[in-house]
Amino acid sequence: MEKIPKPVIRRLVVYYRCLERLKGEGKEYTSSKELARRLGIKACQIRKDLSYFGGFGKRGVGYKVDSLSERLKEILGIGQKWRAVVIGAGNLGKAIAGHKPLQQQGFEVVGMFDIDGRKIGKKFRELEIMHMNDLEKFVKDNNVRIAILCVPADSAQEAAEAAEKAGVEGILNFSARVIKVSIPVENVDFSASLKSLTFQIIKRKGSS
Amino acid sequence: MEKIPKPVIRRLVVYYRCLERLKGEGKEYTSSKELARRLGIKACQIRKDLSYFGGFGKRGVGYKVDSLSERLKEILGIGQKWRAVVIGAGNLGKAIAGHKPLQQQGFEVVGMFDIDGRKIGKKFRELEIMHMNDLEKFVKDNNVRIAILCVPADSAQEAAEAAEKAGVEGILNFSARVIKVSIPVENVDFSASLKSLTFQIIKRKGSS
Repeated sequence: MEKIPKPVIRRLVVYYRCLERLKGEGKEYTSSKELARRLGIKACQIRKDLSYFGGFGKRGVGYKVDSLSERLKEILGIGQKWRAVVIGAGNLGKAIAGHKPLQQQGFEVVGMFDIDGRKIGKKFRELEIMHMNDLEKFVKDNNVRIAILCVPADSAQEAAEAAEKAGVEGILNFSARVIKVSIPVENVDFSASLKSLTFQIIKRKGSS
Repeated sequence: MEKIPKPVIRRLVVYYRCLERLKGEGKEYTSSKELARRLGIKACQIRKDLSYFGGFGKRGVGYKVDSLSERLKEILGIGQKWRAVVIGAGNLGKAIAGHKPLQQQGFEVVGMFDIDGRKIGKKFRELEIMHMNDLEKFVKDNNVRIAILCVPADSAQEAAEAAEKAGVEGILNFSARVIKVSIPVENVDFSASLKSLTFQIIKRKGSS
């Protein structure tokens, strides 16, 4: 299990969500073909991704929805609760802190942090906005495991180092800047996604 | 240039941004090694990615910062202006519409759309929030090329179809749902990123 590429992990998450929907629809079995059709991912890719964790599927029968879903849940640590803080109480930080699907999936934002004196002490929904100086104590007292970085690019490295020092185990980075810390980091980069989209549009126009 | 994998395109965007910073620092030449050090990507990966577009680097000299940056800009369509609408005027939609780095990189949000009567006609900054019924006319009148989908998962497919029908050329999808349309789609999925992060944390704990 050591060397699973990141894109595979991301697809496992997508499979998990699709299986949960199939369960909701009352389906007992599914196939790589059905998952492929629903998700727009090639069936052979799905079979290969799932094979990282041993063969779940039975020829002619397919995958049992609930056991495959359970197994993925376990692999991805989805059963667990993950307490997180949002660093950067701007529009983006608020959008993330209030993003319902996160809570539904076991992620709980328990605090917001900023360095802007005008924001400190104010509330966003039930969350008080605190000063970065209080991050370390808060992380320890509240068993916070994840920091969600929603600060401007120029503040990203400093904020990331503060989060690492405070003792979080991983960082979800929304700032458009590569950060360097020794804990796991996952980057969410809108503008890279937008550029990838425009590249596809240009390529498509060129070939049509 | 037809079959460049998406992860390569995303990395090209990251290289481009790093080159722009190097330019700002007054550097004339760089190397795959230096880019690797700054970005935390392996040098051999960088050389391979750049080789998709022909050999830019010179042995012993490296890459010329401005010409490589120019070439990437052209490849990625970064010189162009891209007008976009945000669909879904919630916290997330507002965060995206107000996200400064997007504007700096040639993406301009020119309208916001929703179906909630309480939001229609209100303003977010200088943008009026309009009804989805008016999307098609707005897209045509304003030369909008991209729709940024910030709606709840259950409304995603319907909104995506409306955007396609309205004539946008591509969709950036922030809803946690796979959408099916015949134009290019790029997904930004926070909770998948968070799960990928927690997977790395669990794996790391297991191996330490």
